[in-house]
Amino acid sequence: MSMSNSPKSIAPKSVAYLGPPGTNSEAAALAYVKHYEATGGGKCLLCPLPTIAQTLRHVAQSLADMAVVPVENSLEGSVPVTLDTLWQLDVLRIRQALVLPISHALISSAAGLGSIVTVYSHPQALAQCQDWLEKNLPKAQLIPTNSTSEAVVQVHSDVSAAAIAPKRAAELYGVPVLVHPIAPPGRQRDANDRADNFTRFWVVSRETTPACAYPPGGTHTSLGLSFPANVPGTLVKPMQVFACRGINLSRIESRPTKRELGEYLFFVDIECDTRSPSVQTAIEELTACTETLKIFGSYNLLTIDPNT
Amino acid sequence: MSMSNSPKSIAPKSVAYLGPPGTNSEAAALAYVKHYEATGGGKCLLCPLPTIAQTLRHVAQSLADMAVVPVENSLEGSVPVTLDTLWQLDVLRIRQALVLPISHALISSAAGLGSIVTVYSHPQALAQCQDWLEKNLPKAQLIPTNSTSEAVVQVHSDVSAAAIAPKRAAELYGVPVLVHPIAPPGRQRDANDRADNFTRFWVVSRETTPACAYPPGGTHTSLGLSFPANVPGTLVKPMQVFACRGINLSRIESRPTKRELGEYLFFVDIECDTRSPSVQTAIEELTACTETLKIFGSYNLLTIDPNT
Repeated sequence: MSMSNSPKSIAPKSVAYLGPPGTNSEAAALAYVKHYEATGGGKCLLCPLPTIAQTLRHVAQSLADMAVVPVENSLEGSVPVTLDTLWQLDVLRIRQALVLPISHALISSAAGLGSIVTVYSHPQALAQCQDWLEKNLPKAQLIPTNSTSEAVVQVHSDVSAAAIAPKRAAELYGVPVLVHPIAPPGRQRDANDRADNFTRFWVVSRETTPACAYPPGGTHTSLGLSFPANVPGTLVKPMQVFACRGINLSRIESRPTKRELGEYLFFVDIECDTRSPSVQTAIEELTACTETLKIFGSYNLLTIDPNT
Repeated sequence: MSMSNSPKSIAPKSVAYLGPPGTNSEAAALAYVKHYEATGGGKCLLCPLPTIAQTLRHVAQSLADMAVVPVENSLEGSVPVTLDTLWQLDVLRIRQALVLPISHALISSAAGLGSIVTVYSHPQALAQCQDWLEKNLPKAQLIPTNSTSEAVVQVHSDVSAAAIAPKRAAELYGVPVLVHPIAPPGRQRDANDRADNFTRFWVVSRETTPACAYPPGGTHTSLGLSFPANVPGTLVKPMQVFACRGINLSRIESRPTKRELGEYLFFVDIECDTRSPSVQTAIEELTACTETLKIFGSYNLLTIDPNT
């Protein structure tokens, strides 16, 4: 492409993520940057931010080129702030999905499990480890933090506290790993070494074309829909529009409109390329029965091998 | 009823909720107890517990007669732990829904907003107040706690910190109210005094009859559905089953099965009584295409006036 020779493309791309360094978001961002650089995308620079909302806003305000944000976890479900912020900001488009296997460590300067009275971590990580915690540290007080890395910083020199975070955070902040991996629920019953814990991330960038225009294609397409207030049975229509064309709907997630209790937006993922004529007629048909329809992007999925 | 004269019914009913006293869950529990006693249900005793999961388990293990737990908020959406625990425990049935208007206060011993550097609260309350916080305390560090009341205890004698909690928590723990109410998003633009922030609670009790049996009726019915793995388009069927009978589906919420990324359970609310023949045939038809179908209950909705 001619653009690759322009001076602008030589400047490194900045990639925002939920920091500080050592979080699972950083692991996903590092893996994406490696893939991006290997496929000729040019050099990247990682940029940690304190919250997911700020991470996305940084890109919307052109302060970063891309953001890597968590969307859903196989144990704990969706990350509502990612969906809500994407809907509000309107100028962000998904360019890639990443699937990262999650492996938590118990990180502490304590001599053993017996001396731990408090456990710090991000609420999602505490929830993902609740079965293990109830079995192994049933009396520990669980304290939420803004990120897993922040939890490691918090317990640094406290011999009665532990953090749940990725192993890399233990190395970065110089705190010993006491237990790794923390087995996910069901893992004990599983003879093979299957990892049950995965998080899906989206890589988003700024896009100035309207959200109703068809984005470049990929294996998955994400849409956001809102309906005129108080029309019953509205959700059946989009289901039928896709089903009658044999388009598989792989996920549906409802979020409050923030206008009234019981009024929702819907986030829908379909396993299809927006360039296919059947998807285009389905979307045209949907436009007629929705209040707002946003196409967040059409993209491919990359599964990350944490060992490479 | 003859039961009301038996010695067993004279013992007060215990009602579990997310404590400590002063939380919105306590406000909902107090309102329900008042309604329950006024309609001839007998005396009740409130029982605060440290987490929502423990609150529900307390009833499942017959350590309490009822639990009052949050289900969804009009700004921040569903409370996943309530849905997940209800699905897992299997022996709990919904007997009543409550809608509570939410009004947050900024509680602190600080002289004014200018001296506040940290704000503590439950993550749901912090999220509900994010617009106000960004406008009024943009530089404050936000620290999550297990409940709003715990946040008030935390800031008790700290003049550089504030908690977001119900006004009642300020009175209970003797900390001054600095701002009340914290206006929800959009409130500033609203000329009338409409409250945009509501939380829906469920009152649950233990039920030994199987979840597939039809519970006593009410205006709303809640169901949980899981489907055989990897069958595409499974969700269209339940939508059609209800739609073709004119049954309004007021809410659909997906949660991970915790088996595999991309595999979901669905929680569905219909605006209908399970005793109606059309609902019964719809449920029979659904049973044929689901892996598991649970009827969590058929119940009425009570809107709480916090001023009475």
